[in-house]
Amino acid sequence: MTTFDPTEHPHRRRNPLTGRWVLVSPHRAKRPWQGAQEAAPDSPRLTHDPACYLCAGNLRVNGERNPDYRGPYVFDNDFAALTADTPAPAADAAPDPLYDLQPARGISRVICFSPDHARTLPELSLAEVRAVVDTWATQCEDLGRHWRWVQVFENKGEMMGCSNPHPHGQVWASGHVPDEPAAEDASQATYVAQHGRSMLLDLADRELASGERVVVANADWLAIVPWWATWPFETLLLPRFAVQRLPQLTATQRDSLAAALRELTARYDNLFQCAFPYSMGWHGAPFSSGPVEPPDSTAHWQLHAHFYPPLLRSATVRKFMVGFEMLAQAQRDLTPEQAAARLRAVPAQHYRHSAT
Amino acid sequence: MTTFDPTEHPHRRRNPLTGRWVLVSPHRAKRPWQGAQEAAPDSPRLTHDPACYLCAGNLRVNGERNPDYRGPYVFDNDFAALTADTPAPAADAAPDPLYDLQPARGISRVICFSPDHARTLPELSLAEVRAVVDTWATQCEDLGRHWRWVQVFENKGEMMGCSNPHPHGQVWASGHVPDEPAAEDASQATYVAQHGRSMLLDLADRELASGERVVVANADWLAIVPWWATWPFETLLLPRFAVQRLPQLTATQRDSLAAALRELTARYDNLFQCAFPYSMGWHGAPFSSGPVEPPDSTAHWQLHAHFYPPLLRSATVRKFMVGFEMLAQAQRDLTPEQAAARLRAVPAQHYRHSAT
Ligand SMILES: O=P(O)(O)O[C@H]1O[C@H](CO)[C@@H](O)[C@H](O)[C@H]1O
Ligand SMILES: O=P(O)(O)O[C@H]1O[C@H](CO)[C@@H](O)[C@H](O)[C@H]1O
Repeated sequence: MTTFDPTEHPHRRRNPLTGRWVLVSPHRAKRPWQGAQEAAPDSPRLTHDPACYLCAGNLRVNGERNPDYRGPYVFDNDFAALTADTPAPAADAAPDPLYDLQPARGISRVICFSPDHARTLPELSLAEVRAVVDTWATQCEDLGRHWRWVQVFENKGEMMGCSNPHPHGQVWASGHVPDEPAAEDASQATYVAQHGRSMLLDLADRELASGERVVVANADWLAIVPWWATWPFETLLLPRFAVQRLPQLTATQRDSLAAALRELTARYDNLFQCAFPYSMGWHGAPFSSGPVEPPDSTAHWQLHAHFYPPLLRSATVRKFMVGFEMLAQAQRDLTPEQAAARLRAVPAQHYRHSAT
Repeated sequence: MTTFDPTEHPHRRRNPLTGRWVLVSPHRAKRPWQGAQEAAPDSPRLTHDPACYLCAGNLRVNGERNPDYRGPYVFDNDFAALTADTPAPAADAAPDPLYDLQPARGISRVICFSPDHARTLPELSLAEVRAVVDTWATQCEDLGRHWRWVQVFENKGEMMGCSNPHPHGQVWASGHVPDEPAAEDASQATYVAQHGRSMLLDLADRELASGERVVVANADWLAIVPWWATWPFETLLLPRFAVQRLPQLTATQRDSLAAALRELTARYDNLFQCAFPYSMGWHGAPFSSGPVEPPDSTAHWQLHAHFYPPLLRSATVRKFMVGFEMLAQAQRDLTPEQAAARLRAVPAQHYRHSAT
């Protein structure tokens, strides 16, 4: 009788942050690909592009001119998905179970990482990435005063819906806690109640001890391909110490975070020798803006970042989360351990920049 | 003071089948698009393509030759994500909360809709679509004898990860009920317990009465852009009578389903005058294969199909569910009512075939 081999046999793994399962079908990586090929997402660019609405000194769609900025630069999104002064719908006594509608108020901002149009996150210097970390932290602190949820994220590459190659991310803040962090909030609270320890600190300890899913590790930070990764080279970036939100990080922890971010994104670029597309974002504890909360109500939260990159086989062949994935459950074609080994096997130095 | 206007002001709507929310930001449809443009997914094709592994009489990757089929043709997927004889991992007494792993066994099959390489679902005759409906029903009946969950689906178009333009879908069956139907199962059971009626029959009645989200309606079937649609032109196809699974449909109900499917997919193609990409699939009640169930344990289920099409503005500009959507919650740029009105405004006849 054949015994179970996770690198050969289909199985399911559970994401303890969301409660969702992923179907792992490692043998399926062998199928030939005759479908869509994306354009290779890497071509040399100008340092300043006169046609880019994010470059310093240029005009934006709304007629405003960007300042001559030198470090990260933040401005309100000209086409914000959330606005602060939206009138609210009339509140129902009991919401209709089939037609529930709730207010959504918030703020959307754009964060330019650097004035240099040609360089992405792993190509910035350590000091420049540190400045991005500081900007993320300041935005969380600022927006957390007024909004329950602050979502810092970056969509990188055309494949991830990014409409401009200028290195930039976004921050959207909302008065409500959205589905994904709400699920993580409940799971982390339950874990602490059951085990008396932080879920993600427990995980960091166990991942460091086993090492098989580790991609980057330094004194303060750890990037792993999580046991339950759905995207082929998905990673979870974890602090090795208890912390709830970005603004709480010390100067040393921010420096080591900048180093971990540079290494992780350089390994990504090195994997298929391209500007590796992804969506990434931070999950810190919800803020207590609005209804008053007991001070320890977010003690179960551990700060972390998710990286969701779509590429599967090469710079031009991606994984599609379609059909079965949309209708039934997520599915992947290589094991998280195999993905981590491949990310560890490439150099930590960016392929286009051999010196730091 | 401005009053709330759902076509202008951001708000959230709740999906009662999954419990998830969508952020509706209708004013955002105005933003210009500078990002990825997809290739227009429509070009004339051969009726029989010698290089296509799905065409009649051709060789497949595994060396088998397709028969000279005339109607729908079903075969086992050569690169199945689920296999029937997989050895199971050793069962844990108590699963590790951080590293839960469960068996996954099942079957994956490919369903060719027609031998004609050049025609998609809305371009088949009514009798040919009816034959596809019968094939779906037979597959559910057959696979439901051995597996708890049978997922019939179609990925259409390169944008939806479809690797071959030959009109085809798939059916994947599994021993476990995946996340998405598990959530729908719980919600439908709760609704019946609370309201004494079927959630989706209640919905069909109310949608027919209001009409503002209706796209297609005939004597037996209704296609709506649901109140909680996340994809721009997402639809939900509902029976107007109580039924749990495809095999239970009568001959008349199958004919009227074929008509509804042809009209819905023709309207889709007509919207941007292209072969409109989507992932679609059927959700019928889980089967009681395996552990014995009381006979009425799926009485709360109502059969339905979801269509998830990615296009937003044109044949080449899609909606990206990235960044905020992956990390926080789904977001859309036009209201479901606006989407339904646009689908109603185009002809019911396919733009490339003016006669039925
Ligand atoms: O089975 P196919 O058509 O090769 O593959 C396609 O459909 C599958 C089921 O939705 C997905 O897992 C794949 O990502 C997609 O490319
Ligand atoms: O805000 P952008 O960059 O124009 O838009 C991009 O990011 C948003 C937030 O993830 C998504 O809703 C859009 O679909 C995507 O194209």
